Amino acid sequence: MEFSSKLLENAVNEMSQLPGIGKRTALRLVLHLLRQPESQTFQLADALSKVRKEINFCKSCHNISDNILCEICENPNRNTELICVVEDIRDVMAVENTSSFKGLYHVLGGKISPMDGIGPQDLNISTLVEKVKAGKVKELIFAMSPTMEGDTTNFYIFRQLQGYNVTTSTIARGVAAGNELEYTDEVTLGRSIIDRVPFEASLKS
Amino acid sequence: MEFSSKLLENAVNEMSQLPGIGKRTALRLVLHLLRQPESQTFQLADALSKVRKEINFCKSCHNISDNILCEICENPNRNTELICVVEDIRDVMAVENTSSFKGLYHVLGGKISPMDGIGPQDLNISTLVEKVKAGKVKELIFAMSPTMEGDTTNFYIFRQLQGYNVTTSTIARGVAAGNELEYTDEVTLGRSIIDRVPFEASLKS
Ligand SMILES: [Zn+2]
Ligand SMILES: [Zn+2]
Repeated sequence: MEFSSKLLENAVNEMSQLPGIGKRTALRLVLHLLRQPESQTFQLADALSKVRKEINFCKSCHNISDNILCEICENPNRNTELICVVEDIRDVMAVENTSSFKGLYHVLGGKISPMDGIGPQDLNISTLVEKVKAGKVKELIFAMSPTMEGDTTNFYIFRQLQGYNVTTSTIARGVAAGNELEYTDEVTLGRSIIDRVPFEASLKS
Repeated sequence: MEFSSKLLENAVNEMSQLPGIGKRTALRLVLHLLRQPESQTFQLADALSKVRKEINFCKSCHNISDNILCEICENPNRNTELICVVEDIRDVMAVENTSSFKGLYHVLGGKISPMDGIGPQDLNISTLVEKVKAGKVKELIFAMSPTMEGDTTNFYIFRQLQGYNVTTSTIARGVAAGNELEYTDEVTLGRSIIDRVPFEASLKS
């Protein structure tokens, strides 16, 4: 692709670094911005710089937050003895959207995936284990996507918690195996939280 | 979509202003940036701000350019008596890519489309007519996308040039009617420039 402007070429190259955005799409997006009022581009640029610079993760649950603790962890009406373990913040948003869950979350930041070089030490697992060891958690709900990596992650954490007095469950599999949690409809996901099964029982199926 | 961070929400909202980028895709892109080194986001933001702030259009052909005249208009090896009329700069890039054309361009900046409220006065037509009236153009090649709006635009310009000593042609229709020029493969597009036909002849078919 030959550009008549270095500024344009540079913008297209940076835009096409984003996943799923090829050079042609990037060019279309940049040319769109050039046709809009300047303020739209400046607001986009500012918003991206700001979220990247000032982004903060909740000290307790690792959810994205503008404060030290996120709104969920700070909400006195949430049940602090019940923790829903999720892969990333999109899953927090998906479960919150169901209005079926009134406990807290723990965001692992990914799932164990030897193929991608992601081991337990790369995830927020130790802080979860510490919460359980501190004795303040009665139940963990594993709400990982029902994939092999999700199952591996659940099982790894389950083994770390052997000997501690905590109930573990997984969300009911209303979802087809292999599906990503965030694409599950609200009703199915909401019901699967309510119908959660003890983790040991899920191993037999 | 409920966000745990105003900064995140703001970035996603701005990103989802882009055409074809919904809220869910915008969230995926912003979360991707949050996982990458800060520099990637800052470079993207800078490149977008810079191209929007400093963007310049060639005073002669209206192509995007970093200087007063674009590289094509300034190239002494180009045939200044032959002008290829295109809708937007992606079409300049598409034709340049064929290496079949050694004249200059004139970028209209769109096509006449009453449905979208775009009339001749919204396009760079008057500067093209002036070039012809100045007597320095021997041939115009209409290289608009073969759509109804493209045909309307060609015909409007053609009528403005009645009585002036200029040959008008359209690129050969190797392309299926209704297709966008920029998605045409290089070979087809290159041949259609060489096989161009007098504009009057194209009206009969
Ligand atoms: Zn939190
Ligand atoms: Zn030019």
